[in-house]
Amino acid sequence: KNSFSIALIAGDGIGKEVMPEGLRVVQAAAKRFDIQLELKVIDWASCDYYAAHGQMMPDDWKDQLAGCDAIYFGAVGWPATVPDHVSLWGSLLKFRREFDQYINLRPVRLFEGVPCPLANRKPGDIDYYVVRENTEGEYTSLGGTMYAGTEREIVIQESVFSRFGADRVLKYAFELANNRPRKHLTVATKSNGIAISMPWWDGRADAMSAGYPEVTMDKQHIDILSARFVLQPTRFDVVVASNLFGDILSDLGPATTGTIGLAPSANLNPDRRFPSLFEPVHGSAPDIYGKNIANPIAMIWSGALMLDFLTAGQGAGRAAHDAIVAAIEDVLKSGPRTPDLGGDASTTELGEAIAFHV
Amino acid sequence: KNSFSIALIAGDGIGKEVMPEGLRVVQAAAKRFDIQLELKVIDWASCDYYAAHGQMMPDDWKDQLAGCDAIYFGAVGWPATVPDHVSLWGSLLKFRREFDQYINLRPVRLFEGVPCPLANRKPGDIDYYVVRENTEGEYTSLGGTMYAGTEREIVIQESVFSRFGADRVLKYAFELANNRPRKHLTVATKSNGIAISMPWWDGRADAMSAGYPEVTMDKQHIDILSARFVLQPTRFDVVVASNLFGDILSDLGPATTGTIGLAPSANLNPDRRFPSLFEPVHGSAPDIYGKNIANPIAMIWSGALMLDFLTAGQGAGRAAHDAIVAAIEDVLKSGPRTPDLGGDASTTELGEAIAFHV
Ligand SMILES: CC(C)[C@H](C(=O)O)[C@@H](O)C(=O)O
Ligand SMILES: CC(C)[C@H](C(=O)O)[C@@H](O)C(=O)O
Repeated sequence: KNSFSIALIAGDGIGKEVMPEGLRVVQAAAKRFDIQLELKVIDWASCDYYAAHGQMMPDDWKDQLAGCDAIYFGAVGWPATVPDHVSLWGSLLKFRREFDQYINLRPVRLFEGVPCPLANRKPGDIDYYVVRENTEGEYTSLGGTMYAGTEREIVIQESVFSRFGADRVLKYAFELANNRPRKHLTVATKSNGIAISMPWWDGRADAMSAGYPEVTMDKQHIDILSARFVLQPTRFDVVVASNLFGDILSDLGPATTGTIGLAPSANLNPDRRFPSLFEPVHGSAPDIYGKNIANPIAMIWSGALMLDFLTAGQGAGRAAHDAIVAAIEDVLKSGPRTPDLGGDASTTELGEAIAFHV
Repeated sequence: KNSFSIALIAGDGIGKEVMPEGLRVVQAAAKRFDIQLELKVIDWASCDYYAAHGQMMPDDWKDQLAGCDAIYFGAVGWPATVPDHVSLWGSLLKFRREFDQYINLRPVRLFEGVPCPLANRKPGDIDYYVVRENTEGEYTSLGGTMYAGTEREIVIQESVFSRFGADRVLKYAFELANNRPRKHLTVATKSNGIAISMPWWDGRADAMSAGYPEVTMDKQHIDILSARFVLQPTRFDVVVASNLFGDILSDLGPATTGTIGLAPSANLNPDRRFPSLFEPVHGSAPDIYGKNIANPIAMIWSGALMLDFLTAGQGAGRAAHDAIVAAIEDVLKSGPRTPDLGGDASTTELGEAIAFHV
């Protein structure tokens, strides 16, 4: 297969600003490596759409997207008008679940030219993947309130884990680690405090590790693991985590590389029964929206992950991915730079510069 | 009241090594500021005790401790023989709950003489408190497993929040912020993902903030909040968080100041109906136990918090607290240093040096 159908969802805020630049670079790379892309612009899944229709997406959203190979996604959220849990559960989190994008893959990497907030770290010292479970766990709307509105109010929130769900993300992470030179896997846990789900999660990790004798595994509690992302980043290779812990680690990791403005993510349905979704880790950033100063690199890098995944890491897609990442590296080294990295280039200028290097 | 009864629980691993040094310094300060301490050595609440008795504590543990004003606590845990969730739920977490120590107060501070893992940060740049809810929330043994041992296995873990529990920790945090010059409170949340408890938690914070017009409050999702502990530590003053989020932030914060080996904590029952408990944030560290190289500063600083709390932040206790913290500052500046800070001093030598400066 050499032609792929991609749905474009810009969303809210800076999602609308970084999307054109991501697209610019993806199209440049696709052209160079002869990958056919069929683009479908989607104008829903945004808080603007919510304002007009009282919901984030049309009822037939699934049908409209079902034929696509991938969703290229900006950012959703405009808390001034729609509470985050409404906008996110009505769009992004729905995609992740209903399209069974059970892997959230987030590379963490320190680049030359990006000032590192950690002292004495150089490119190469921080280079790992966070593999986040993306469809279950701590993110649920299950539970409820008792004695609501009174002094005695009690709120129950349920987390739900399944063997099916844990095993497939653990398997993906072990495979990834097994294919990397260091073959090291860190499993995030909190079995000393969260007394039902986390000891069980540890057990699933132990069971899976039996099938990967060459992978060294160590389990770390999320508190000390977070500390080590700062104190000992060189020890990480692949880190696998539940939905919530993966969310935290995949903002913290990029922060240690200078900014979460660069961090990409891939929400994968590895079975390819449903479209996968590629998006920056950052959000819609209402505070800087409208100025055309957002850094589009996370969006662009997400586009590289998309091309890579579409061709299953082989041939044209991998080459296109590598060319985009190399172009990002070039521009980070030599400029131009957006204000978050100390420059005064616009979002557009950055996209143009990276597209030029591809 | 000028005489206080303190139970000493060393626990496991380096808990046994740092306890004597903590005590040495606490006694020196008590002597200097004329505070009478009555000490009661407890030889249970350890994995050794578990090995002999099949439980972490005797059945009458509560009676044995009930008369005490404070528990001075080392560290519990020896995973080689007792799983962490057994040893911790059978001791530390029991104290926190059954003695209603609903505040876990954890100062985060960068000291001169401690190499900071963050680039270009100096003492004064990192100086805030994490106030952690300590008795409910995500830490529960509620829930269970369905279809256990089969492919269809499903695990439910419940978090439980109460208005009673949330309001009292929020109130404590607002009071603390209100008494600090900057009067700024950050509320950790994750209301965009954890859809029942966290939007509710945000609502409780909003309600409480109405009573503190001078305190500026901002709510931050735990993922970006973790990132900002690294990228923008100067913006924090007081941070209030649920049990789990507070656990993570109070390891991450100290990590950004160089080591969690220094971080103290106070598990407070502000009502004084039950003893409060003072302990290092670090654990029992089986890997370095037995060499007398553990850094005792976290234990010693916890002792300072204890003296401060015992006299309600007034008079002799506050003076003793300040003298201990000043002595810690002196020794961090001039040495001696334990191996974690690049020196070769022993645990004992460090304790002696700090006691000398008090
Ligand atoms: C040992 C563990 C149960 C404990 C916790 O998670 O509360 C520790 O990490 C802490 O922060 O005091
Ligand atoms: C916006 C939010 C619901 C989302 C998440 O927590 O998953 C985001 O933080 C992310 O990491 O993709």
